[in-house]
Amino acid sequence: MPKIVDHDERRREIVAVTKEIILRGGFEAATMRSIASTAGFANGALKHYFRSKESIVAAVFDEVLAEMTEVIGPGTDDPSLDGLRHHLEAMLPLDEPRITAGRVLLALWEYAMSDDELAKRYREHVADWRAALVAKLAACRAAGTITVATPDEDLASELMNVTIGANVLSLISPMGSLIESYERYIDSFIARM
Amino acid sequence: MPKIVDHDERRREIVAVTKEIILRGGFEAATMRSIASTAGFANGALKHYFRSKESIVAAVFDEVLAEMTEVIGPGTDDPSLDGLRHHLEAMLPLDEPRITAGRVLLALWEYAMSDDELAKRYREHVADWRAALVAKLAACRAAGTITVATPDEDLASELMNVTIGANVLSLISPMGSLIESYERYIDSFIARM
Repeated sequence: MPKIVDHDERRREIVAVTKEIILRGGFEAATMRSIASTAGFANGALKHYFRSKESIVAAVFDEVLAEMTEVIGPGTDDPSLDGLRHHLEAMLPLDEPRITAGRVLLALWEYAMSDDELAKRYREHVADWRAALVAKLAACRAAGTITVATPDEDLASELMNVTIGANVLSLISPMGSLIESYERYIDSFIARM
Repeated sequence: MPKIVDHDERRREIVAVTKEIILRGGFEAATMRSIASTAGFANGALKHYFRSKESIVAAVFDEVLAEMTEVIGPGTDDPSLDGLRHHLEAMLPLDEPRITAGRVLLALWEYAMSDDELAKRYREHVADWRAALVAKLAACRAAGTITVATPDEDLASELMNVTIGANVLSLISPMGSLIESYERYIDSFIARM
């Protein structure tokens, strides 16, 4: 009987290991050799699952963006200010796992700067993110919970910029030291609506 | 007569060349070899000016932060809303050179993630930036041009996060496509004050 190997499962393992390596040591630490040895593969065996480091990185990128899409997706349909608050709390790095996850995103931005295909994927992700946020804000406005004059598009831009900035500053600052300031930001954003 | 070499001038050249290389190709493109050849030095001659790639990078980091400090520094003492507007316009990436300069910053953030000394310098820079912004906002408040209830510290945090997010999103998006949205953000921030 032929040995049965779950190809997709192995690919997922490789992606998880690569993400872990980037999280700890950044992009430079993720080499075909370090990925193979951490995943417990013989040198060269990775090639059965991914053509190149670039294709592994693309898969990590897809997974990170998919995780983020889950977070920033339509979520609950609750158009109250509480529903909006939950949406913002899900986006911002308000706990250690999300602060740490920003490390992978930073590495991927840097990588996407010299990889057009990854840059294109990230732009699509940003467009989806913007659309989901605008839809959320529009629902709140339709329900009368948002009455501020600033257009939804501009509110969405502010929230996206703050989220990205928060990812960077939270990584650079002592772990967790900015969480309270982001909670206050959410309070004050909600109060403005 | 001994050959006179302006040591500091050579160091500045090397820093400028390295910044240019990072701007075009990111961190991976900046090697001792590529820096030497672009600067027109013989291989190995760099060592007379910098011990290692790390020390060149630290010098680039210092220069980029010094440039940013000029931009975000006390600036004019004008505590009117116009003075505040100029301050925000100086911070945000509202033209092509500043959008491009964000490329170096992104590379340096990534690098600082695995270099404690650079991370410390960036944290100090962020603390200075925050202090300068809070001072600017406090001056506007003392002059009666800011009356919003949100504390200056929180307004400063919002502005810093938006600036960092704007750096990242402007790099990922088609060149210049977000400039208008940042101009609208400044308008709406000023209107809130």
